[in-house]
Amino acid sequence: MSETVDNCPFCNLKQRVLKENTLAQVILSNPHKVPGHFFVVPKRHVEEPWKLEPEEITAIFELIFFVEQRILKAKLGTGVDIRQNYRPFMTQGRLKVNHVLFHVYPRSNEDYLYQVSEQYETDLFAELDDAEAEAVAKILQ
Amino acid sequence: MSETVDNCPFCNLKQRVLKENTLAQVILSNPHKVPGHFFVVPKRHVEEPWKLEPEEITAIFELIFFVEQRILKAKLGTGVDIRQNYRPFMTQGRLKVNHVLFHVYPRSNEDYLYQVSEQYETDLFAELDDAEAEAVAKILQ
Repeated sequence: MSETVDNCPFCNLKQRVLKENTLAQVILSNPHKVPGHFFVVPKRHVEEPWKLEPEEITAIFELIFFVEQRILKAKLGTGVDIRQNYRPFMTQGRLKVNHVLFHVYPRSNEDYLYQVSEQYETDLFAELDDAEAEAVAKILQ
Repeated sequence: MSETVDNCPFCNLKQRVLKENTLAQVILSNPHKVPGHFFVVPKRHVEEPWKLEPEEITAIFELIFFVEQRILKAKLGTGVDIRQNYRPFMTQGRLKVNHVLFHVYPRSNEDYLYQVSEQYETDLFAELDDAEAEAVAKILQ
C-alpha cells in the first residue's frame, strides 16, 4: 500500500496537507475552480478508482465528509459537490493528475459555476426510451 | 437502516433495479444527461451524504466500480465520471432527488457534455494566492 511514482505531484507533495488519516489526505486545489475547492487523495498511488481498497474508500470518505461539513459550517456554500473523474484520455498536467483524486467544493443556488457552465447541462437531459434503457441495462449483465 | 420516506422516488422505486448488494442498488437515470447514465443509491433513505455509514459507502462503491468497468468494457466512453451533489437549495423534482445518489456516466475526449457545458469550466480555474489558501485552510482547523 505504499507505492509512489516519481513524476506524480500527489506522491511528491510540495503543498501543505491540511488533514489526514492513515490512508488519505486533504490538500487545496491549486489552481482552483471555485473558492473552497479541496482535493481528497489516497496516499497510495492508484490511477484506476476501482483499484482502491475498501479501507481506502472508507478513509477517503471520512475526510470528504469532514470537509463537506466544514464548507457548510463556514458558509462557503449552501451545498457541496463531490466529483471523481477517470479521464485517461487527458494528459497529466496542471489540470489533470493521474493519481486518483476526489474534488470537494461548495455550491450555492445559481452560483458562478452554474452560470458559467452547468446551466447548459440542463439542456442535455433527455428521456430514456425503452429500447435505449434495455440496451444500456444489458451492459451490466 | 431501513427508513423509507413516502414521497421519495428512491424509497418507492418504479423502475428496474439492475444490480444490487445488501445496502445499495443501481438504476438508470431517467431522464439521462448522457447515454449510459447510471445512479448508485443507498437503500436507506439518507439526505446528507455524511450520514452514510462506512458499510454503506463500501457497498455503494462496490457497485460504482462495477458500473465504471462495465461502461469502459462496453466502450460507452474511454473515461468515466462519478458525481455526488448535495444541493438542499434545490426543490425535489425530476432533476433533483433528496435521497443521496451517486451519478456514474461515461466520458470521452471533448464529448458532448464537454462541448455543451464543461469546456467553460476551464475558464474558472484561478491561481490560489497565499492569503486565500490560508483563509480556506483555516476552515478545517
